[in-house]
Amino acid sequence: MELSYMPTRRSAVQWAAQFAAGEIDVTDAIDQTLAAVEACDDPAIFTLTTPERAHAAARAASVRQRDGRSLGWLDGVPVAWKDLFDLSGHPTTAGSRLLTDAPPAIADAVIVTRLEAAGMVSIGRVNMTEFAFSGIGLNPHYGTPVNPHGQRRVPGGSSSGSGVAVARGLVPISIGTDTSGSVRIPAAFNGIVGYKTSGGRWPMQGAFPLSRTLDTLGVLCLSVLDAILVDAAARGLAAPDIRRESVRHLRVIVPTNVVFDECESAVVANFEAALKRLESAGAYVERRALPVLDEILALNAQYGPIVNAEAYALHRERVEGEAAARMDRRVASRMRLAAATPLSAYIAIMEARRRIVAETAAMLEEGWLVAYPTVAHVAPSIDELEADDDLFLRINMKTLRNTLLGNVLDWCGISIPNGADAQGMPTGFLLSGGPGRDDHLLASALAAEDIIRSEAA
Amino acid sequence: MELSYMPTRRSAVQWAAQFAAGEIDVTDAIDQTLAAVEACDDPAIFTLTTPERAHAAARAASVRQRDGRSLGWLDGVPVAWKDLFDLSGHPTTAGSRLLTDAPPAIADAVIVTRLEAAGMVSIGRVNMTEFAFSGIGLNPHYGTPVNPHGQRRVPGGSSSGSGVAVARGLVPISIGTDTSGSVRIPAAFNGIVGYKTSGGRWPMQGAFPLSRTLDTLGVLCLSVLDAILVDAAARGLAAPDIRRESVRHLRVIVPTNVVFDECESAVVANFEAALKRLESAGAYVERRALPVLDEILALNAQYGPIVNAEAYALHRERVEGEAAARMDRRVASRMRLAAATPLSAYIAIMEARRRIVAETAAMLEEGWLVAYPTVAHVAPSIDELEADDDLFLRINMKTLRNTLLGNVLDWCGISIPNGADAQGMPTGFLLSGGPGRDDHLLASALAAEDIIRSEAA
Repeated sequence: MELSYMPTRRSAVQWAAQFAAGEIDVTDAIDQTLAAVEACDDPAIFTLTTPERAHAAARAASVRQRDGRSLGWLDGVPVAWKDLFDLSGHPTTAGSRLLTDAPPAIADAVIVTRLEAAGMVSIGRVNMTEFAFSGIGLNPHYGTPVNPHGQRRVPGGSSSGSGVAVARGLVPISIGTDTSGSVRIPAAFNGIVGYKTSGGRWPMQGAFPLSRTLDTLGVLCLSVLDAILVDAAARGLAAPDIRRESVRHLRVIVPTNVVFDECESAVVANFEAALKRLESAGAYVERRALPVLDEILALNAQYGPIVNAEAYALHRERVEGEAAARMDRRVASRMRLAAATPLSAYIAIMEARRRIVAETAAMLEEGWLVAYPTVAHVAPSIDELEADDDLFLRINMKTLRNTLLGNVLDWCGISIPNGADAQGMPTGFLLSGGPGRDDHLLASALAAEDIIRSEAA
Repeated sequence: MELSYMPTRRSAVQWAAQFAAGEIDVTDAIDQTLAAVEACDDPAIFTLTTPERAHAAARAASVRQRDGRSLGWLDGVPVAWKDLFDLSGHPTTAGSRLLTDAPPAIADAVIVTRLEAAGMVSIGRVNMTEFAFSGIGLNPHYGTPVNPHGQRRVPGGSSSGSGVAVARGLVPISIGTDTSGSVRIPAAFNGIVGYKTSGGRWPMQGAFPLSRTLDTLGVLCLSVLDAILVDAAARGLAAPDIRRESVRHLRVIVPTNVVFDECESAVVANFEAALKRLESAGAYVERRALPVLDEILALNAQYGPIVNAEAYALHRERVEGEAAARMDRRVASRMRLAAATPLSAYIAIMEARRRIVAETAAMLEEGWLVAYPTVAHVAPSIDELEADDDLFLRINMKTLRNTLLGNVLDWCGISIPNGADAQGMPTGFLLSGGPGRDDHLLASALAAEDIIRSEAA
């Protein structure tokens, strides 16, 4: 899906190929990247640029490449970090104005160290929903990055700047976090790939938390192969150990409950078309109800979501104090909803989660995947959501609904673009795997990607 | 430590040897076991006997052994279950009178199935602190099993009946649970071996919970080798895969803080003597402060222990309702203490636990063990604790102090008898390993057992 008003987008692999062919030097490429960020007509995408750091890393990568000592596919490739990752020497602002005077981080986040060890060049940090607490991506402090697919639509959140920066070709790779869908949703809304790890796969140290139980890391990028390369680097591997799967070996459960409720027709049509192509290519598809999905929504309704309780516990002093006036009202008010959550409710939902994670992990153990639309709708209008907080609440919940299931169940998941609606707004095809089954998910997604995308141009 | 007033105690391995030598048939041995339980002068040890189930299992084991098809070391060996494990057809009473009319369990606990699959013969269930909520072992409903070492001392809890049944030679193996020390404490007080697994090693399904976060399973028995055999069966292995360690390879940290505070002199003397023997045998011992131990006590004081919050959430309706009048007053009142715990306090201590578990796991990763006295004192007097609830509270906290550190840190641990005080009351030597390092702990304990015990006869 090449968009005429965007600069040429290149995947990380294409960047590496250019370096390998000697078509451009890393220092020039990074200079151009920084210049493009500087010249960008949307000032709400980046919250921080780190040109000195980028130049130093680019020079080192350039020397390595000239000497024939490239560190691999990611060497010299730019990366932008969600605004919640520690970069030594800068306060970690997490999309909030409350933290602009926080003490600067004394160390990089571990994931930053890992990707830089693979040669990646940190360009800076990109915008997000304040404290990562919404799937829409509005931000009254740093501005709302505009969805590049037109009509002033939202970018999706909470990794809003990550989605737009990659979709617009400013960087090929951006690292985000996903607590209820914050990687997969902006990927779907912006027509790119978003991969969310299952718990514990990538290092969390130095990432500003929202919910310690549900927080996971992930990457927004242009292809499944790029996600696989970043995954290897994030785990400290010299190169991926993922073996390509055959589509004929894929076994996919499509839930018949919850995930299609109130789905827009274009979302359903694009999903069904991609599914049919997968089936034609030999994948085995089983449609059936997964009662656990209804159970998750019922648990959230009965006890209050885990993320709300943990976000409130983390930010209580802010949202109950005078600082709340300097917060996004939609963030502060939604966090305060958990103030009344009794301890017994939280313990009950945590206990229920442990049980259903184990049950569904067992269900997916033999290599089953789960497929459904990433979000039930395409990106909604910025102005309508800015104007109506009740509408915002309702749309935010519906935006998060499909993806949050994967966080509660500790699934890994990858959203792959599978077309657009009549207005050209992208839709996403979400493929999920069980806890710790990331290798299998990525191998399967690599096999399925072209088929899922093939009508999407 | 053979006690003249006890029947001859035989370890599981000695039972197996007798069967193998044809000295006794399994059916006769199980008949004798049931008769000894029946004739026992302490009616508070067993809460349930299952003679039909035992006879049927014994007959099957007898046939196997006659046919030369023994299932291994545990085939035909009796086992008694803590009163909280489901046995199909019986209500699971968990040491409480409130559950005597509960619906009968419709399936055995998974651990029951596993040990019976290895040939073990379930004799029945043994007493415990009501709902497993104390380390002392008093029980006003089913009576308090008396410590067999004389002077009307407590059995230790919460697996009180397990400790006394094994110490008195009624059964060689009893399975318990350990949330703050409930396997290791009765092992120490009764002069036997108690092994507590780290989280997730043995299956929990069908065990009545106290704290889902901290509950673990364990075994009370007469030797480390018996613990190793039971561990293999509990994990569904046909035989142990533990390799004996050399004492000269042991590296042991002895904390200088917390665990020796207010320790009785005989406890310290027996610990130091055993440690010296280990050093003489070639073990490397490093004495140093572990600040995390102080931190755990401070966290418990600041936020309230995790176990209290989770026990209250589980039993809230009981302890806040009229049922409380039919509970052990010391259990109900202590559970009610957590009623005022705010959600943010619980989330804060859970978050702190995650951090310190990871930190100390890393510290012990290279095979380090931690050693200190299992309990700071020997078993106290039943009558004094029955008479004074304030004294009970204080002694209960002190009894749990050393062992609960291991539950908070998800350590595995094994208490090995290392002597007695001047009145003949046993002391315990606790060896602990990091999360999931059970194989290494058991292999090390196997090497160290004789040395730790050698002056203890």
